[in-house]
Amino acid sequence: MRHRKMHLGVFVLGTGNHIAGWRMEGAYDSFQSLTVIQHIARIAERGFFDLFFLGDTLSAGPNDHPSFTARFEPLTMLGALAATTSHIGLGATASTSFNEPFNVARLFASLDHLSSGRAAWNAVTSSNPRAAPNFGRDLPEHDDRYRVAEEFVDVVMGLWDCWDEGAIIANRETGQYIDPAKMKQLNHIGKYFQVRGPLNIGRCPQGRPIILQAGASETGLDLAARTADVVFSVVQDFEEAKQAYSALKDRMPRFGRHPDEIAILPGVMPILGRTRQDAWATLDKLQSFITHTNAASLLSARLGLDVSGFPLDEKVPDLPLPNTSHGFARAMLSKARREGMTWRDLHNLTGAARGHWVIAGTKEDIADTLQAWFEGGAADGFNILPAWFPGAFDGFVDEVVPELQRRGLFRKHYTATTLRGHLGLDMPKNRFF
Amino acid sequence: MRHRKMHLGVFVLGTGNHIAGWRMEGAYDSFQSLTVIQHIARIAERGFFDLFFLGDTLSAGPNDHPSFTARFEPLTMLGALAATTSHIGLGATASTSFNEPFNVARLFASLDHLSSGRAAWNAVTSSNPRAAPNFGRDLPEHDDRYRVAEEFVDVVMGLWDCWDEGAIIANRETGQYIDPAKMKQLNHIGKYFQVRGPLNIGRCPQGRPIILQAGASETGLDLAARTADVVFSVVQDFEEAKQAYSALKDRMPRFGRHPDEIAILPGVMPILGRTRQDAWATLDKLQSFITHTNAASLLSARLGLDVSGFPLDEKVPDLPLPNTSHGFARAMLSKARREGMTWRDLHNLTGAARGHWVIAGTKEDIADTLQAWFEGGAADGFNILPAWFPGAFDGFVDEVVPELQRRGLFRKHYTATTLRGHLGLDMPKNRFF
Repeated sequence: MRHRKMHLGVFVLGTGNHIAGWRMEGAYDSFQSLTVIQHIARIAERGFFDLFFLGDTLSAGPNDHPSFTARFEPLTMLGALAATTSHIGLGATASTSFNEPFNVARLFASLDHLSSGRAAWNAVTSSNPRAAPNFGRDLPEHDDRYRVAEEFVDVVMGLWDCWDEGAIIANRETGQYIDPAKMKQLNHIGKYFQVRGPLNIGRCPQGRPIILQAGASETGLDLAARTADVVFSVVQDFEEAKQAYSALKDRMPRFGRHPDEIAILPGVMPILGRTRQDAWATLDKLQSFITHTNAASLLSARLGLDVSGFPLDEKVPDLPLPNTSHGFARAMLSKARREGMTWRDLHNLTGAARGHWVIAGTKEDIADTLQAWFEGGAADGFNILPAWFPGAFDGFVDEVVPELQRRGLFRKHYTATTLRGHLGLDMPKNRFF
Repeated sequence: MRHRKMHLGVFVLGTGNHIAGWRMEGAYDSFQSLTVIQHIARIAERGFFDLFFLGDTLSAGPNDHPSFTARFEPLTMLGALAATTSHIGLGATASTSFNEPFNVARLFASLDHLSSGRAAWNAVTSSNPRAAPNFGRDLPEHDDRYRVAEEFVDVVMGLWDCWDEGAIIANRETGQYIDPAKMKQLNHIGKYFQVRGPLNIGRCPQGRPIILQAGASETGLDLAARTADVVFSVVQDFEEAKQAYSALKDRMPRFGRHPDEIAILPGVMPILGRTRQDAWATLDKLQSFITHTNAASLLSARLGLDVSGFPLDEKVPDLPLPNTSHGFARAMLSKARREGMTWRDLHNLTGAARGHWVIAGTKEDIADTLQAWFEGGAADGFNILPAWFPGAFDGFVDEVVPELQRRGLFRKHYTATTLRGHLGLDMPKNRFF
């Protein structure tokens, strides 16, 4: 275990991951700005991060998190970053509920070529009931969404296998451009999709893009154990994180995979201070910006019910898991039960890091905690959620990353140029060739 | 008419528009290369072009045009160019047959923001029968495709109107991020689509992206007359071009629009030589690269029937218009009839510029012809199809463009930073605000 290193991703929302992070002094207040995203990517490469990651939503309302309300579409945005960054992995969410597998396979293959091997697809089932009416549909039930997702991911991965390496010959003398033996049709005929293939783009630099997932339900864990390279988890304490970690790793052999083939990265919002008092003061300031209006919209989405009318000082009751993302709902409801939280407390928790874990302290405190999780069987690294940009991310990269490097826990420079290389993963086998 | 200037677009296929252009000395032989597309974009900006344009296909076979077989997905690619170019318009095709309006509206709005107002959407109905099986569907009939397209374009344009300018307030003191009065739902309930909106991206820098179209059927012309800003036409001679020009311009008042609100750009492949003999020698060389195999695949797609078994020296018979693109089929079949062409002749015509018009000559010859069309009521400019890259495009930009500039027909520098500005079009009205 001596040489095992952490993997670090940054969860990018231009206005900050905290719902009101943009109100901090010097914070960016737009996620619709090329300057902003290019600056964030530069900081991430300065810190030798593995991955620049974008979540996504397919709806907008005036009280939503600002970065979900007005933002670039993720793939066009990562196309822009592919041309202006050199090392960092570029990951984005694309829904398996409101897209065509052919289009998704093509978008991420294209990003992988444009970035010379740095693309990653976060395959998610849409759990946002407000997205469905933008596509003329109802939101399917949780397990139905996952049945579609299982097949969707298989089709996309199959399309990525339709080309062998070296298919493009481009022989000027003979005029032969393609070796037809190195292109195959997929001919998928399934329950939800019929897709012939091949894609009109050659074998990817990474073999195929990296697969990210975040599912925490039983069906979500099965899908991840079978297909994912990196998994984001939503956890609020160490024991929960350890459980989530082994719940996924333990099921991998069932799908013929070694536990090391997936990197599990809990999401965490680090709040850094010169002293613990400083850090807590910063967190207090951020939390003072949370209003009932902005937090209620997010919490309602997380729990799949309208919480805006609930009395703020009443305790959160036991609630069943909703037809939204199980990961978030479970982490938040179990923390509320453990700590006897009121609705006000839960608003504050959601507004801070959208349900993710928050740690406040000095650089040593934060490094201690990350190290304990990393070495204690709870994480292979972390998906860092800076509360605002650029300040909170600069702080992490300039203070905490060097501390992790001193401890031998994180790389001191890039040793690869592809995301697959950063993750230490082998090139995937091609089912056809 | 003294101050009327041409508009120029470049139709980009990395291996050249000629099916075997990549075999020329010094030609690029890949459309899957960031270096190649960035070089082409730099040449286009050096020539003060209005538009860098990408067609698209949604299928691939080993005998297809090389640039349709292995290529970037257009929107990710234009995202990369948005970050590495400064003036040129960035246009791409997205099918109204195999996409969701919400996704298309979002992709092009995002590109418009990323490029600070240079995005253009070529709204096409998919006419390629080999694309449909990649989406588990049959290709709908021509007029049905257009009924879907009519509604699809309306929904996309409606989604672009869901935000007013200035909706993002981002007031750090009060915490108000959005002015809710400046966001509206679309609430579209139509025959083919139900879409609530709004998009999760603010009002575009161009108000809305520029709409490109290429339809030549009656239904296609109606859609263009009602909604398009720029129309590409497929024509093989001056009289045909004049007819196509007035067929579209004359119907615009019916939709409450002035004929100047659309720029019609015939596609043309210029083959440049120091002498006419040089130019013809270059064309002969290109044509000698056409094989029955590569041309037959393209011609079959254009005519909607498998022509690979037809005797090459038999005359092309009268054929009905197919269930593919009417524009290409009509231009090619009518030229074949006019000139008594054999199947071999039609193979050569298709292989050259995929059915578009070819002119070979000196820079003065080419400028003369473009001027005659521009001043004779057949064109507002041209979509240039270089036979290969970079050589044939360098030649046009360095020889023909200065000749057009000397004649006062084309701009000598950019006077705007948006595509709408290059085209001289006003900001569009917003239906909601």
